[in-house]
Amino acid sequence: MDYKHIFQAAIDRLHDEGRYRVFIDILRTRGKYPDAQCFGGNGPKPITVWCSNDYLGMGQHPAVLTAMEEALHDVGAGSGGTRNIGGNTHYHVELEAELASLHGKEAALLFTSGYVSNEAALSTLGKLLPGCVIFSDELNHASMIAGIKNSGCEKRVFRHNDLAHLEELLEGEEPGTPKLIAFESVYSMDGDVAPIAAICDLADRYGALTYLDEVHAVGMYGEHGGGISERDAVADRVTIIEGTLGKAFGVMGGYIAADRNIVDCIRSYAPGFIFTTSLSPVLVAGALASVRHLKASAMERDAQQDAAAMLKRKFADAGLPVMESVTHIVPLLVGCPVKAKRISDVLLAEYGLYVQPINYPTVPRGTERLRFTPGPWHSEDKQDELVGALVEIWDRLELKAAA
Amino acid sequence: MDYKHIFQAAIDRLHDEGRYRVFIDILRTRGKYPDAQCFGGNGPKPITVWCSNDYLGMGQHPAVLTAMEEALHDVGAGSGGTRNIGGNTHYHVELEAELASLHGKEAALLFTSGYVSNEAALSTLGKLLPGCVIFSDELNHASMIAGIKNSGCEKRVFRHNDLAHLEELLEGEEPGTPKLIAFESVYSMDGDVAPIAAICDLADRYGALTYLDEVHAVGMYGEHGGGISERDAVADRVTIIEGTLGKAFGVMGGYIAADRNIVDCIRSYAPGFIFTTSLSPVLVAGALASVRHLKASAMERDAQQDAAAMLKRKFADAGLPVMESVTHIVPLLVGCPVKAKRISDVLLAEYGLYVQPINYPTVPRGTERLRFTPGPWHSEDKQDELVGALVEIWDRLELKAAA
Repeated sequence: MDYKHIFQAAIDRLHDEGRYRVFIDILRTRGKYPDAQCFGGNGPKPITVWCSNDYLGMGQHPAVLTAMEEALHDVGAGSGGTRNIGGNTHYHVELEAELASLHGKEAALLFTSGYVSNEAALSTLGKLLPGCVIFSDELNHASMIAGIKNSGCEKRVFRHNDLAHLEELLEGEEPGTPKLIAFESVYSMDGDVAPIAAICDLADRYGALTYLDEVHAVGMYGEHGGGISERDAVADRVTIIEGTLGKAFGVMGGYIAADRNIVDCIRSYAPGFIFTTSLSPVLVAGALASVRHLKASAMERDAQQDAAAMLKRKFADAGLPVMESVTHIVPLLVGCPVKAKRISDVLLAEYGLYVQPINYPTVPRGTERLRFTPGPWHSEDKQDELVGALVEIWDRLELKAAA
Repeated sequence: MDYKHIFQAAIDRLHDEGRYRVFIDILRTRGKYPDAQCFGGNGPKPITVWCSNDYLGMGQHPAVLTAMEEALHDVGAGSGGTRNIGGNTHYHVELEAELASLHGKEAALLFTSGYVSNEAALSTLGKLLPGCVIFSDELNHASMIAGIKNSGCEKRVFRHNDLAHLEELLEGEEPGTPKLIAFESVYSMDGDVAPIAAICDLADRYGALTYLDEVHAVGMYGEHGGGISERDAVADRVTIIEGTLGKAFGVMGGYIAADRNIVDCIRSYAPGFIFTTSLSPVLVAGALASVRHLKASAMERDAQQDAAAMLKRKFADAGLPVMESVTHIVPLLVGCPVKAKRISDVLLAEYGLYVQPINYPTVPRGTERLRFTPGPWHSEDKQDELVGALVEIWDRLELKAAA
């Protein structure tokens, strides 16, 4: 067998399609987020990060750092085991209680990542419900798609946020068939929002459970950071809410929140939860501090919304093709993978501004884009610097301006 | 649909079989590993942990804690993104180089856990090799089983460490069929070791790739902690070595090491790698310090082996049914899930000694056991305390002593 040839061909395919990914090697700078350093080439060089999912800068918040430092010294680096064998620390128990309370649910369960939360929860739910059919929004994240696939259930894909299509598919199943509707609140590449209440209405009408991914919303929406479901006052109508500790909360890890029995089932049956070393207590302590801070403080959320509104306005005023978004996510349409990469390269090399190009398969071909995530620390000066650079590059590369 | 009833029934099944898991809520005590505190009941109570996979106590090593603290203050809590979008820090790049060097491979790739490493690497390898057949040891870990299943490949299960059976299965396939043999070096519930060289001989003869899980060996075997494959001087013959940062290295995360092209394929095609927030730089910095320390220092490995040899001898001398193990893992056979749980409960409640019972499905029914992991810090005094307690409980519960 010529294995080398097979692997080489797989890599060549990516180069041929312009999709081969080169990771930018960066280090943030102490206390100066979103400023960072970029390695490679002629040594470290200062940059500003415009595409981080540490949306609120909580990864450098003093309350988070202090909690992590204390845990590090009190209990050590890792948990040393699975949740069942020595890896269940008091921090884990406390954070799960805090997350359950954040979403108004009876219980919550931690996972090592949001990806694992979705894969483990959806695959296990599907296996526990005999004959279940899962209804999945066509733009659902890769981790949800993996979980649905691994559940072995029949899947019906409904057009993005399309209630009529979802209802048509629900209607097509027998009333006695178990059903689960899986969707997200904020879709992270477009910045649009699901009609959660209307989806819950359909779930009620057709006897379906609902599974809502709030990873791009928790910490950022709702009075206490409980996400869009809190903002829209519909959290109690959603069966399972899934979230992350690695974006607005600034740390790492994922979770679900739901009724006690559903959480207990996933805790007891999901291999991706059972057979893995639990989250480091250092991360759990940091996440606990972050969740508690954002429950009480709206300052970061408000500043983020202001920054996003300002950047959208500045992009539009400068004639840049800003895409419609009702959230903190600010995408600029490019429509070509090579040009998107080129703009990103010039921004980094000449201006020290870092934004990653978003190409297929993360977004559909022809909608390649730059995705900006302005936060509380992206000041008006920084925004003006960014807009100026983009206008210059847009002219230089003769890109079409917004209509 | 009566969903409540379905979920309740799933929980009831576990109670009926005596397999419902209750997590012990613990916190380690600053600088006193393996001593800890146990929560619940009448408040925190001091205990000694006998079942941690922080095998060498590196989770409390000063070099690890210092590195983590520095990273925490220099760059913050989380990475803020996937490896491709803002989450590729200089620590990640450095640790991957260090791990590649540890195993004498061209490249390495970090994952958020060992579970994800196995799932992502095996499922992706299988998908990239058209018509591949995967040969899997019957005692392989749940994460390897998940990866093989999700690869969509045909699977042939060979009897545990049985070379004749493996060869018989290899012989049964066409010479032109891509083949992958997946196995572990140290099997963590029995403490036995795979014949790596002989498996590589078979792989050569039948044109198969090899995938070796070294999670219970890295840091602990070989002159530099490269695992059993380093100890046996066969690392260069294994195609892909998989390891963890969450056991002997004391932190959290997983990795693979292999040829540059294979690593690049998995980096480029595995959804479980691509679509997830990267490991926190704090964890990566700690793991880097730990790997470097254990590359140079054999003291922890030697002390662990001495402690394990001593505990095996003391168990045997006391007439306790210690199972055969050629590694640092020391299992005592109980053979009944209810008794295993009962012994564990009495040890914790009356003696403040924590060892988790290991029941089905982690081990086959009828081989339920207690699994001890003595390390450098389990002194002779602690060992005598443990043996005394076990002898008393064995008498009290009228358990059969070793033949």
